[in-house]
Amino acid sequence: MSDDQKPYKNGFKFPEQSIRTKITEVSPNRLSTRGFNQEDLIENLSYSENVFLILRGRLPDEKEAKIFNHILVSFCDHGVTPPSTQSARLIASSGASINNAVAGGLLSFGKNHAGAIEKAMALFQESISGLNLEETDPDDENKRIALLAIEIVNRYEGESKRVPGFGHRYHDKDPRAAKLIDLAIQESAIGPHTKLALAIESILNEKKGICLNVDGANAGLLSDLGFDSDLGLGIFMIGRLPGLIAHAFEEMQEEEKFRRFCDLENIVYEGFKNKRIDDGEE
Amino acid sequence: MSDDQKPYKNGFKFPEQSIRTKITEVSPNRLSTRGFNQEDLIENLSYSENVFLILRGRLPDEKEAKIFNHILVSFCDHGVTPPSTQSARLIASSGASINNAVAGGLLSFGKNHAGAIEKAMALFQESISGLNLEETDPDDENKRIALLAIEIVNRYEGESKRVPGFGHRYHDKDPRAAKLIDLAIQESAIGPHTKLALAIESILNEKKGICLNVDGANAGLLSDLGFDSDLGLGIFMIGRLPGLIAHAFEEMQEEEKFRRFCDLENIVYEGFKNKRIDDGEE
Amino acid sequence: MSDDQKPYKNGFKFPEQSIRTKITEVSPNRLSTRGFNQEDLIENLSYSENVFLILRGRLPDEKEAKIFNHILVSFCDHGVTPPSTQSARLIASSGASINNAVAGGLLSFGKNHAGAIEKAMALFQESISGLNLEETDPDDENKRIALLAIEIVNRYEGESKRVPGFGHRYHDKDPRAAKLIDLAIQESAIGPHTKLALAIESILNEKKGICLNVDGANAGLLSDLGFDSDLGLGIFMIGRLPGLIAHAFEEMQEEEKFRRFCDLENIVYEGFKNKRIDDGEE
Amino acid sequence: MSDDQKPYKNGFKFPEQSIRTKITEVSPNRLSTRGFNQEDLIENLSYSENVFLILRGRLPDEKEAKIFNHILVSFCDHGVTPPSTQSARLIASSGASINNAVAGGLLSFGKNHAGAIEKAMALFQESISGLNLEETDPDDENKRIALLAIEIVNRYEGESKRVPGFGHRYHDKDPRAAKLIDLAIQESAIGPHTKLALAIESILNEKKGICLNVDGANAGLLSDLGFDSDLGLGIFMIGRLPGLIAHAFEEMQEEEKFRRFCDLENIVYEGFKNKRIDDGEE
Repeated sequence: MSDDQKPYKNGFKFPEQSIRTKITEVSPNRLSTRGFNQEDLIENLSYSENVFLILRGRLPDEKEAKIFNHILVSFCDHGVTPPSTQSARLIASSGASINNAVAGGLLSFGKNHAGAIEKAMALFQESISGLNLEETDPDDENKRIALLAIEIVNRYEGESKRVPGFGHRYHDKDPRAAKLIDLAIQESAIGPHTKLALAIESILNEKKGICLNVDGANAGLLSDLGFDSDLGLGIFMIGRLPGLIAHAFEEMQEEEKFRRFCDLENIVYEGFKNKRIDDGEE
Repeated sequence: MSDDQKPYKNGFKFPEQSIRTKITEVSPNRLSTRGFNQEDLIENLSYSENVFLILRGRLPDEKEAKIFNHILVSFCDHGVTPPSTQSARLIASSGASINNAVAGGLLSFGKNHAGAIEKAMALFQESISGLNLEETDPDDENKRIALLAIEIVNRYEGESKRVPGFGHRYHDKDPRAAKLIDLAIQESAIGPHTKLALAIESILNEKKGICLNVDGANAGLLSDLGFDSDLGLGIFMIGRLPGLIAHAFEEMQEEEKFRRFCDLENIVYEGFKNKRIDDGEE
Repeated sequence: MSDDQKPYKNGFKFPEQSIRTKITEVSPNRLSTRGFNQEDLIENLSYSENVFLILRGRLPDEKEAKIFNHILVSFCDHGVTPPSTQSARLIASSGASINNAVAGGLLSFGKNHAGAIEKAMALFQESISGLNLEETDPDDENKRIALLAIEIVNRYEGESKRVPGFGHRYHDKDPRAAKLIDLAIQESAIGPHTKLALAIESILNEKKGICLNVDGANAGLLSDLGFDSDLGLGIFMIGRLPGLIAHAFEEMQEEEKFRRFCDLENIVYEGFKNKRIDDGEE
Repeated sequence: MSDDQKPYKNGFKFPEQSIRTKITEVSPNRLSTRGFNQEDLIENLSYSENVFLILRGRLPDEKEAKIFNHILVSFCDHGVTPPSTQSARLIASSGASINNAVAGGLLSFGKNHAGAIEKAMALFQESISGLNLEETDPDDENKRIALLAIEIVNRYEGESKRVPGFGHRYHDKDPRAAKLIDLAIQESAIGPHTKLALAIESILNEKKGICLNVDGANAGLLSDLGFDSDLGLGIFMIGRLPGLIAHAFEEMQEEEKFRRFCDLENIVYEGFKNKRIDDGEE
């Protein structure tokens, strides 16, 4: 294909052959990430500060670093209950390597599992952005957020949908969410997105006893930290990876091989029976 | 958790512990799939007839079997050009096992790659279903489909979108689509969905020289065969798997290990430079 | 990096930038695979003949085509019992897309699951190749294979290992293996590798009631067809993919979302309890 | 299947239905990991301390925490050069979701990529364990490790193999390894495994100018911290995940869709040409 045919052909755009990046510059004996020598990062940053740098392109200040660290720790593990952890353990028990087990766990994230954090971030960010709070004084801000929360709860109720980031299969009150909010209050790190999350919780709790969950609390905090909602699942995965690895490793070390989570006695066949291909010919 | 708390808690529904299936019944020394003994299937069915049975729950008739076989063969390979094949080869060249290479290839299917078949099936099925053709005589049917095609092309043009299933990055005229349509004509297997695909092609071809591609032709044929549009990607994967395996195997056998598709000379760093963490303290 | 530094640097070999392939030639409006126009393949080959062509680089003869088709059909499904199928269903139930579910299923193949076919192919091929049967008359061939079988069984027993391809978790007698062997006998397609498989079965059956399973039967037949043992898992995956897709689709269509295969009542915590981080400081 | 048939049948052991774990205890409104309330972990631990706790089952002391944090940061990113990063970007550019891109990246880890860390850990741990250093005085320890290093280098040279953890495709001197060792010296955290790594480096550097790489340095340090060699890849993945996510996100945000790393002009077809299926019949 000659250059003049590029980059458009048959209505499709062809990407250039070279690849542009702003993350890491590689040259012989030198690696620099987001402008910093990697030696400097290794010596001076905590892991969570380094993640903040890589994803946001700048260093966090002290308060941001503390909150972001709490967020990453809070996602660490929910035992054997999530499908992602069960997938990772199933795959590990079949003798596959640990990266397969972890990858299989990550593939479980979908609409019904780990999808709430990005939905909640998008909801909080769109809603707050619509308020144009820049020139608002604090009292007025709080009132407007309270009204917005009522509007959101009513809208979701009207569509018979659950507000993302609230309620939990196993917990009436998700202990991680409560602790994250406590710490953010102590550290004066509650911004408008987290205020909105708390205002929604207050309504849902009064009406139905439903509380903020770990996804909802972190959706508020991450939005206040300025993270794009499309990074929500990525940050969750960073937080959860150590748990997935611990489960895969435990399965490899401790358990019988070839786990099945259900066996003949749990499987009910409800299909056709006793059919025959009569002609016996292909 | 006691039984009386199930299956609802905190607004979430819990699935039952047992699993119900209509696909295969397993008992000691006996396997039957969709009601047929697997011995019967092994002896009497071609692979593509068997796939039809597994996915649709019934045997195909002779004409259906022929068309479905053509469809599966037509997806077999597009050389090294697709990102899925490049991913599979990259992974194979790193020394990972062949199932990893294939899985990585499958993970490449997304909005921009292999997404057209399900979109085209959904478009054709919703459009034709809206016509209520059951009581229509053939001449009238053709006219109404022709009008529908005009309406569809106009709607997509109005939204500056491409109609899914038409046009190809590498081919002005996709040779697979043309052959599939020829064979379906010979075998009198053109139903209303494929008619609609051809009517759209005729407009797009006249206006812009854009033709039906392999996804569009198969979307028509599979819809005429009664397949749910949510099975489109699954059927494509069955067709493409042998190609992915051949590429992964070729990479493992023939090539230098540790392929990279781009190297320092193709990577352009456009980010920050020469920053320093001044305090030197965490 | 200048050209003179390539292809070796710091003891590593760098692959060339271009990629060489013998599978499919792509040019505008033309696709040819293993030398054949894809239109020709679509019109004239069954899916299983086409798979044979793609993987082996040549067309099968009529007998090879029949046997290879039986092999692919025989792998189609084992219900919900295998970890791969359970992984695929877990992932599908979480709302992930169908390619994720299938990829997760493929990642379950490891030492303890689907590993037997390649081990059996390697065992049969190395053993038969060591006999140098080219110049042997049939009677002598049978005797030497019978002796080899005894030697193999003794060797594995001596190392307290199971011979790969024999015995099955759910079946005393795997019905698929028996049917495959029957058909191969009818079609005069039993070569030395399958003879060896049968000779080993005869010993194991007499000693311990252990029979050939579907992996062992197909390992013999595929070896007689000339397939490299490194393609065993690939062929198994082609055979199994329709089953994985049917299960993922069934889960998406029929079942409650967010399946878990075990819940609080099945999980036993055996670790530490009630520890505290005393200093309360990081 | 009745209970008396379990857990053995046809020579296979069946796992129990329940699952045992020592990682996290889940009960309503309470989550505790390795014995600690998750609220306590969120408030008091850095992410890397928490990873140490999850993987090792105990808290690190202050020195261990520092070294382990350096290790995790050092793996963060190597730009667009590794196949894992290229796979993740390819998959992201096809419109797949971010967890697919990351999972595809992880699947690239194999014999030729990211395999060195576990091999180096196993080598260092087996070698040092064979020395029975418990009762040795420091001078004698250093001498015995120096002799061991010579023996190891000779053994690998004799087998024409590279010692795992030494040399780098892009760096004569891997800047990350040098910094990690400097910091470990400052923090008096060099144990026998890292001593062995340094002794091997000294020989290889003198002979061939080959230095310790990031995998080799971390293999020494992680072994001194008491990590099982089967956790090496897991720890690498935790360190690398943020980089993979940043690259996938950059691809999703910044680049043209449907990246291909090579196109028609880079693909050389070397297979058969112009064959025909003569009979025209299946």
